[in-house]
Amino acid sequence: MDIQDANQTAVERMLAAHPVLTGVGQAQDVIPGMHDGLFLHAGPPIAWPDMPGPMRGAVIGALIFEELAQDSESAQAMAASGTITFAPCHEYNAVGPMAGLISPSMAVYQVKDTVTGLTAFSGINEGYGKVLRYGAYQEDVQERLRFLNSTFAEVVHEAIQGIDGLDLRALIAESLHMGDEAHNRSRAGGLLYLKALAPAIAQKAPTSAVAEELLQFLADNALASLNPVMAAAKVMAQAGHGVAGSTLVTVMARNGFEFGIRISGLGDQWFTGPAPTPNGLYFPGFDASHANPDIGDSTITETAGVGAFAMAAAPAIVTFVSGTAQLALETTHEMYEICLTEHSYFTIPALDFRGTPVGIDLRKVVETGLTPRINTGIAHREAGIGQIGAGLVRPPLDVFTKALLAFAKQYGFAD
Amino acid sequence: MDIQDANQTAVERMLAAHPVLTGVGQAQDVIPGMHDGLFLHAGPPIAWPDMPGPMRGAVIGALIFEELAQDSESAQAMAASGTITFAPCHEYNAVGPMAGLISPSMAVYQVKDTVTGLTAFSGINEGYGKVLRYGAYQEDVQERLRFLNSTFAEVVHEAIQGIDGLDLRALIAESLHMGDEAHNRSRAGGLLYLKALAPAIAQKAPTSAVAEELLQFLADNALASLNPVMAAAKVMAQAGHGVAGSTLVTVMARNGFEFGIRISGLGDQWFTGPAPTPNGLYFPGFDASHANPDIGDSTITETAGVGAFAMAAAPAIVTFVSGTAQLALETTHEMYEICLTEHSYFTIPALDFRGTPVGIDLRKVVETGLTPRINTGIAHREAGIGQIGAGLVRPPLDVFTKALLAFAKQYGFAD
Repeated sequence: MDIQDANQTAVERMLAAHPVLTGVGQAQDVIPGMHDGLFLHAGPPIAWPDMPGPMRGAVIGALIFEELAQDSESAQAMAASGTITFAPCHEYNAVGPMAGLISPSMAVYQVKDTVTGLTAFSGINEGYGKVLRYGAYQEDVQERLRFLNSTFAEVVHEAIQGIDGLDLRALIAESLHMGDEAHNRSRAGGLLYLKALAPAIAQKAPTSAVAEELLQFLADNALASLNPVMAAAKVMAQAGHGVAGSTLVTVMARNGFEFGIRISGLGDQWFTGPAPTPNGLYFPGFDASHANPDIGDSTITETAGVGAFAMAAAPAIVTFVSGTAQLALETTHEMYEICLTEHSYFTIPALDFRGTPVGIDLRKVVETGLTPRINTGIAHREAGIGQIGAGLVRPPLDVFTKALLAFAKQYGFAD
Repeated sequence: MDIQDANQTAVERMLAAHPVLTGVGQAQDVIPGMHDGLFLHAGPPIAWPDMPGPMRGAVIGALIFEELAQDSESAQAMAASGTITFAPCHEYNAVGPMAGLISPSMAVYQVKDTVTGLTAFSGINEGYGKVLRYGAYQEDVQERLRFLNSTFAEVVHEAIQGIDGLDLRALIAESLHMGDEAHNRSRAGGLLYLKALAPAIAQKAPTSAVAEELLQFLADNALASLNPVMAAAKVMAQAGHGVAGSTLVTVMARNGFEFGIRISGLGDQWFTGPAPTPNGLYFPGFDASHANPDIGDSTITETAGVGAFAMAAAPAIVTFVSGTAQLALETTHEMYEICLTEHSYFTIPALDFRGTPVGIDLRKVVETGLTPRINTGIAHREAGIGQIGAGLVRPPLDVFTKALLAFAKQYGFAD
């Protein structure tokens, strides 16, 4: 077995993937294996007692949304009772930002790789303020969830059908030419998403008032494209997964307690370690003492060669996550050192259209000691509050070292 | 009289201007002084015999649109007969891209400076392909003009009213953070424009089919925001006009035959010289031999501190106008040398949010020999064909020298 050949195969498959948004459906109808009482969450596996505040808040909110609990107390009792099964989104080809909760009745985007046929899933982005993904669960959160899972899901599904699907690889590529890094800064992506769907939404909505409401919701949400983009990144990364002998990192995800990765050549094992707390900028009234450790599946964007890896394309992001334009350039330049190649579709105008660094090589991470750079939102550490900032974070090197030792053991040679 | 003080006054007024899109109306109803038989065009004054192909094509198209002529032959006869009065858009506070034709029945955007109360005007951008502004006039051009001047104008006017006007200063500022330079690259501007209007269009359109058609037209036109942005640039530049003793350049415009400027302290005189031909990239089947000399009022963007002056914000534009990311940076850096100040609202993320160079100082242009850099579209030199490319151009230094001599003469000192 030649690691270099295996990695080339894996990363070529990753780059060949062509994700297309095909529709919106209810999780229990469209995610294989989804069933009553199964709640998917961000990051590696985690049991209720270990769940951090924002994830607990999201579980409470999802239980209320599913009408399995009436309030926070009854929801917490039920979550602790063992009648709910918790599992990582990634184990169902799903991805969710922050807490990443997907329960059976929630609407999810379906993103299909036209090359492998694999479909990945992600919930509907709720916008800003008090939202489930940051651990808020109160009535206004519930009201928005009901809207997103009924009218929004139905009309947007029809609109997506009406345009025969939306090419997300093209959307991501174009958004990088418009100052996005396609993770924390997704403004252009959101507008491209609105542009693609607006005419069909106007046509498919049952009334002009509904059309107006949906278009206003999309227009007001600069993260509207994040969830479909994450599902697109998931099918891309997953296309490179399962290549024997490959050290390609195909999953990086956090549950707010632990950070975990999966490796192409190491099957479905998780390698985990403590999730660090991001450095960043805080909303007024909050500081690092309120911050939950890093949380969410949105690192699938970095895994697929965008996010912080494409930060050189998005200098304006520094107003949101901290830093300078120089840091944005340096971040991308540094990530070339731990990646297998440069992206063939995602390019950076400021670097004369050089492809983004893509395909994290476990060996290079351990060899250089450079862990992947990640852009992220910051959740309050208590349930029920929400987002308090955004920033930069790097996972612990130890997780990668553990994975490399496991690789050496599985493939029968020393580190 | 102190030139420095005068220039400071002029450029401060320019930066203080706050353009807001207030509506769409018919030129003859809203442009003061517009009357039957008055046709406005881009650039400095020009008579029919001197008009280049694309402007002749646009005049032919406007005469057919106004039902004053049936075909190209009768239109040319009428244009030559002296019954049509031709005047520069700028003399009516209007601006038009390329040929810039505005005839009495055409719909125009109204952009008001909330500080000075001045309103400027610009036609509706027609999108790509065979369009009047590039000198095409055939039936498909006429059909689109009829659509833009009826349904589109009515619904978009109501939508603008419905949102109480659109802040174009904010739109331009945001678009520069999304990889636009707000002239040749206006993709983000177009999407921000769509985002602002889409919900109201869905609400105001008489039917869902009309809403869909309008949203599709806007979605397909990455220059949809160019015309309102040009009118915004016009009120900004005009706010700095008319300051005694100021050498601020307040108009740069081309008619495809001559390039002309106006100076804040020199009233309404035009200073002109031969328009150069742009260097750029051509569409398949065309080359420089087909190119018309530089044409259009869109240089009002550079005059107001965006366009090529903000090119460092828009590295992706080089795929369209030629050059490299380095050229984009150098262009902005060089323009600081001939400008009075840096913009307080328009900033460049890649330069750590430094303001764009703004306020071209006639003295500095002549002193350094550095003429303003301009991004532009390229029209075929014959009437009826259209756009054949896009590129970069610099006006002749001689025009600025003539203006400075006139300034010295008017204010009673030697050059």
